[in-house]
Amino acid sequence: MKTSYTLDMNCDLGESYGAYQTMINSDEAILPLITSANIACGFHAGDPAVMRMTVERAMAHQVAMGAHPGLPDLQGFGRRPMEITPREAYDMVVYQIGALDAFVRASGGHLHHVKPHGALYNMAAAHAKLAEAIAEAVYQVQPELYLYGLAGSELIVAAQRVGVRGVNEVFADRTYRSDGRLTPRSQEGALIERPEEALAQVIRMIKDSVVISTDGTSLPIIADTVCIHGDGTHALTFAQEIRRMLEAEGVTLTAYQAK
Amino acid sequence: MKTSYTLDMNCDLGESYGAYQTMINSDEAILPLITSANIACGFHAGDPAVMRMTVERAMAHQVAMGAHPGLPDLQGFGRRPMEITPREAYDMVVYQIGALDAFVRASGGHLHHVKPHGALYNMAAAHAKLAEAIAEAVYQVQPELYLYGLAGSELIVAAQRVGVRGVNEVFADRTYRSDGRLTPRSQEGALIERPEEALAQVIRMIKDSVVISTDGTSLPIIADTVCIHGDGTHALTFAQEIRRMLEAEGVTLTAYQAK
Amino acid sequence: MKTSYTLDMNCDLGESYGAYQTMINSDEAILPLITSANIACGFHAGDPAVMRMTVERAMAHQVAMGAHPGLPDLQGFGRRPMEITPREAYDMVVYQIGALDAFVRASGGHLHHVKPHGALYNMAAAHAKLAEAIAEAVYQVQPELYLYGLAGSELIVAAQRVGVRGVNEVFADRTYRSDGRLTPRSQEGALIERPEEALAQVIRMIKDSVVISTDGTSLPIIADTVCIHGDGTHALTFAQEIRRMLEAEGVTLTAYQAK
Amino acid sequence: MKTSYTLDMNCDLGESYGAYQTMINSDEAILPLITSANIACGFHAGDPAVMRMTVERAMAHQVAMGAHPGLPDLQGFGRRPMEITPREAYDMVVYQIGALDAFVRASGGHLHHVKPHGALYNMAAAHAKLAEAIAEAVYQVQPELYLYGLAGSELIVAAQRVGVRGVNEVFADRTYRSDGRLTPRSQEGALIERPEEALAQVIRMIKDSVVISTDGTSLPIIADTVCIHGDGTHALTFAQEIRRMLEAEGVTLTAYQAK
Repeated sequence: MKTSYTLDMNCDLGESYGAYQTMINSDEAILPLITSANIACGFHAGDPAVMRMTVERAMAHQVAMGAHPGLPDLQGFGRRPMEITPREAYDMVVYQIGALDAFVRASGGHLHHVKPHGALYNMAAAHAKLAEAIAEAVYQVQPELYLYGLAGSELIVAAQRVGVRGVNEVFADRTYRSDGRLTPRSQEGALIERPEEALAQVIRMIKDSVVISTDGTSLPIIADTVCIHGDGTHALTFAQEIRRMLEAEGVTLTAYQAK
Repeated sequence: MKTSYTLDMNCDLGESYGAYQTMINSDEAILPLITSANIACGFHAGDPAVMRMTVERAMAHQVAMGAHPGLPDLQGFGRRPMEITPREAYDMVVYQIGALDAFVRASGGHLHHVKPHGALYNMAAAHAKLAEAIAEAVYQVQPELYLYGLAGSELIVAAQRVGVRGVNEVFADRTYRSDGRLTPRSQEGALIERPEEALAQVIRMIKDSVVISTDGTSLPIIADTVCIHGDGTHALTFAQEIRRMLEAEGVTLTAYQAK
Repeated sequence: MKTSYTLDMNCDLGESYGAYQTMINSDEAILPLITSANIACGFHAGDPAVMRMTVERAMAHQVAMGAHPGLPDLQGFGRRPMEITPREAYDMVVYQIGALDAFVRASGGHLHHVKPHGALYNMAAAHAKLAEAIAEAVYQVQPELYLYGLAGSELIVAAQRVGVRGVNEVFADRTYRSDGRLTPRSQEGALIERPEEALAQVIRMIKDSVVISTDGTSLPIIADTVCIHGDGTHALTFAQEIRRMLEAEGVTLTAYQAK
Repeated sequence: MKTSYTLDMNCDLGESYGAYQTMINSDEAILPLITSANIACGFHAGDPAVMRMTVERAMAHQVAMGAHPGLPDLQGFGRRPMEITPREAYDMVVYQIGALDAFVRASGGHLHHVKPHGALYNMAAAHAKLAEAIAEAVYQVQPELYLYGLAGSELIVAAQRVGVRGVNEVFADRTYRSDGRLTPRSQEGALIERPEEALAQVIRMIKDSVVISTDGTSLPIIADTVCIHGDGTHALTFAQEIRRMLEAEGVTLTAYQAK
């Protein structure tokens, strides 16, 4: 008897802003490859017009749509950590989910998930109180939304505690340290360059529920969704390769659904 | 047989921002007097924290809640007209309705109406295409929302055409020109200073469906809701007087409901 | 005896923002072709990092540097007209000149000129009071700065009145109406596509001080500086062609200096 | 022979924004009491109109004017620490100094000093690299500007190293820990409530160059300028008391000047 495996492939979309329509082409190119999209909500990237167009594109490709709330820092693209209170995190997540949801509803679709962006994602992975505030925001606005977070992190723990369905996100092209965290990009060996290696890591994650850390330790990990990137020719080719190989391995690619 | 009259009293709330919590006290003071609140959505005023707190306050006072979308101009408080396309108006209204609605949903309430703010309100009253785009935004997000606009203006016409329920807003303390427009604040005689005169104007509007313009003409007008202000001691006293006198005249004050 | 002609070629630079570094390459490509640069100051485009880098690049290419103040509308790229008072125009121009000037001083250079951007440029060309406020801002901050404006427009008139040196800007690739205004981009025939035609227009402007309007009228015009664009391969090729042909005609290209 | 003592009293001004003109009255009330003003530059508070008006007021009161650059966080009033690079700190300080300086020049005055605001002030006090970048920014724009920082902190050290004149700031109404830092506001005993105690602390600082920490240790400290507050009746009364008592003690209050 053969077990069947499913996997969600998610990607950040809608990161243009005003006259800066630089990511439109890559959005169009990545959409056929993914099963869920994290759509910027105007704080770190995106604006009302970009959000509307991105929702329309995602609908056309039948890709599940998620809100991608970030810190209020357009200039820093939401990548600069800020000291915010859990209350502030709650408020900014509620606001951004609502803003995106309105475009989703206006287009006749429905919102599928929420995934914090950039520094907010990392802060939510590490700090229990912030994580709880974010999970609480999702719960209060729409409790059936999935909450994407770093696999096994505080955000996943908080989702469980609050009563929201956490979705464990893994990375195909990033290495893991023995404490389960990603190797920071600033360090050597943070990135996996070869698609075959990335594939092997993902296959091991979904079939054996483990990842081999940079020092050789085998760590338990749950892989509900894998994050890929669409910016640049390299990223796109990498995504295509991974997708092709996963399908060849018999993995069904589909937007995340709780069993 | 006696006819009974009802009237909605609305007021703009939640106009603080960040450290500028200057209107908190006036919000608390005006809430017991009004039946519906127009809550700023972060573009011309308000921020996520202010929106959450304002929704909580409105809920506590059982005041109907509306989104109060404005132009993206915090520095100008949304009062400086900008040349925007109908598409841009649509997008910014969808975004702001959604953002506020998320706080309303998170607090267990439901959104009652939408009223454009400041320059956007005036632009929507005068320009058919902008008006239609705004009505369309309301319709697409949630067609049962009421859309408040200047009585008899393009926004009311557009609401009807699009299939949204327009609500005719009148002013107690402003005079009307013979073309049905408000006398601009920059002109003499724009404001009605004495509560008795304001009351007389409102009573005539709701009982006889007319308003006497500055040159003495009797103009037909529908008064579904009256706009009052809560900033400053004078405005508050004025609102209290109007409310007391309307009740003495047998007018039932209640949030607008379509018959 | 032969008259010698000089011309300034200016271009808008530094229009990246935060992660949106899309114009870096075109900035590098256009710099060798121009004699003066209009550098965005953070309101409609640009941010402190982009401003520093753009000033460094302009210095390296010995291109004269100007502040390029715009309306406070990053999302609309400063292209959406806003109703602002002359006082507001004055304030936003003073602020932006100062911000850019600090980077220029920090790099050991000196500021050469000011050119309003987008909607502010058009508003200043048409409205005497706004034009005067902008000229006044330049005068108060640094009276020796040149003020670039549409040739013969209200801004040039205001500069003269206020005591600032106005610089008449012409366009190589735009046609002129018989009232001296540019044909709006939205109308057919607004753009001159062939470099030869554009060259002929510029040569006529600098040698005969006239331009032939779209209905064949010969209009007097002063050409102190010509605006070119650097975004896109086409614009770049066009600029190269114009420059090459102007030099072949014996026109000396140099940053504007009052005689 | 009697030594004479001088002291600078500084206060943050110009913290209104757009329609939020809440601090205008307190600005007017505090101006006669102080010798130097730190004027917000539009990032954490202030806008071009507020800056112009605040400069005019400071000029009228012959109060020395300083730029008060903050983090780009209007909603958080520049009080939320952000992880920024030294380069980013440099850029945002250059920009803000320039913006304010333009208003100062336009009013015929000259800029006296720079004092970082809020979180940027605290970050500059503790982190050598950020401190150096800020001192470098001041040096590059105008090396003769004074740089105000927490007495004895990294910012003062960096100023010395870079070649800018650091000015040691002390607090009248805050207690000090034995490591020389201020007791955080979140802890008990952080504030000195009684003017007599505050006066005693300041007098000891300027006459004996020591401060008694919360655990009774006597710490060396240099007091070039003392920070006071103008918001609220209490703060104003406190400032008046301190000023009166300092003058009674023979201390000359005057804007800081290097000996």
